[in-house]
Amino acid sequence: MNKVAVIVAGGSGSRMGTAVPKQFLELKGKPVLVYTVETFFRAFADIKIILVLAPDFVLQGRDLIKRYFEGSNIQIAEGGNSRYHSVQNGLKLVKGEAVIFVHDAVRCLVPENLIQRCYQEALQKGSAVPAIPARDSIRMVEGNKSKVVNRDNIRIIQTPQTFRSDVILPAFQQPYRDSFTDEATVVESSGKDIFLTEGEETNIKITLPADMLIAEKILEERRMA
Amino acid sequence: MNKVAVIVAGGSGSRMGTAVPKQFLELKGKPVLVYTVETFFRAFADIKIILVLAPDFVLQGRDLIKRYFEGSNIQIAEGGNSRYHSVQNGLKLVKGEAVIFVHDAVRCLVPENLIQRCYQEALQKGSAVPAIPARDSIRMVEGNKSKVVNRDNIRIIQTPQTFRSDVILPAFQQPYRDSFTDEATVVESSGKDIFLTEGEETNIKITLPADMLIAEKILEERRMA
Repeated sequence: MNKVAVIVAGGSGSRMGTAVPKQFLELKGKPVLVYTVETFFRAFADIKIILVLAPDFVLQGRDLIKRYFEGSNIQIAEGGNSRYHSVQNGLKLVKGEAVIFVHDAVRCLVPENLIQRCYQEALQKGSAVPAIPARDSIRMVEGNKSKVVNRDNIRIIQTPQTFRSDVILPAFQQPYRDSFTDEATVVESSGKDIFLTEGEETNIKITLPADMLIAEKILEERRMA
Repeated sequence: MNKVAVIVAGGSGSRMGTAVPKQFLELKGKPVLVYTVETFFRAFADIKIILVLAPDFVLQGRDLIKRYFEGSNIQIAEGGNSRYHSVQNGLKLVKGEAVIFVHDAVRCLVPENLIQRCYQEALQKGSAVPAIPARDSIRMVEGNKSKVVNRDNIRIIQTPQTFRSDVILPAFQQPYRDSFTDEATVVESSGKDIFLTEGEETNIKITLPADMLIAEKILEERRMA
């Protein structure tokens, strides 16, 4: 089956307090985004990459592709006003049947074998969404009260959220709703079940400045292992 | 009102993969636990500290108190088989009316002003439990299905879980149940409401090796601020 990864890098860096959006920050001498793309190419040499970038960063994205991925199967799509619209723009470049990964560009430590496992499971079941257990107590607020949630039932969702094209493409024909906070919610709203698969603690999202340091540490540990 | 902090350090270090439990690991030259205790003393000079330690680490705890807190109002209690039993042992050393903080020893970066705010709010409402919003999508599993949870309603719970003594002490007279995963669940099960207060992103729990590095980074940033 064809493989397509829609890598979403819509951010503009406001939470990091840096001028450079986090997907372009250098991690041990290489932009975050380059790690992400390299890992998908390592997982599947025949994969097609669709990089979704905010309009202001398309030029920078082209430079990066030229420098690191010249001649590779990689295309750029422009981001929209929401995650949903950004992914929708990316999906417009998918041709024919495929297993489609939708991945946060800033999850640059995603392990190859997680990508490969998501592929196998999505191919079989229609979807595979990596998730990890909660490390802390969790409560749910209702008005000014709150109640405990059984932590054993809680899963923290990661990416790549992975789907067969016959599952995800029709779902992204739906009109936008505010409840579409990730691809799983879009697919679920189209009436399809979401299947979770075991994620990875180290598949972190680079959001806050300290995350860059954690990422460096994880890279160092993997090299030593 | 009297102030008592029950600082729970029951761990034996298995998740860190180190021989030394994480509360005794050195962070920039000082054990994690020392930061925690110092911060409570800085928040309230008249506070009493009850340190709950696994029986095998009581001697090490005594040495640490002698070295860093000689002459301070600090007592040791022995940990039990569960978080509930450990806290219960600590609470037995509370005399008279008080506002009682129950805090994870490994949350060594707890800000002073969070402790002070928890005090004020618990004094007034009976409880104050710090909580932060979720950064990722959250789902709840039911059998082999899962459904999305509105992330806006989810709160990740931190410590110090803070209570007036008339709220927490009767709650810890209840027979143990497996659902007692933190102090809030114990108090809630006794029929009292739990009030949340805004936690702090940097009030992290040192659980995994990379957390030590994050903690160092946060300390360095605070010193520069």
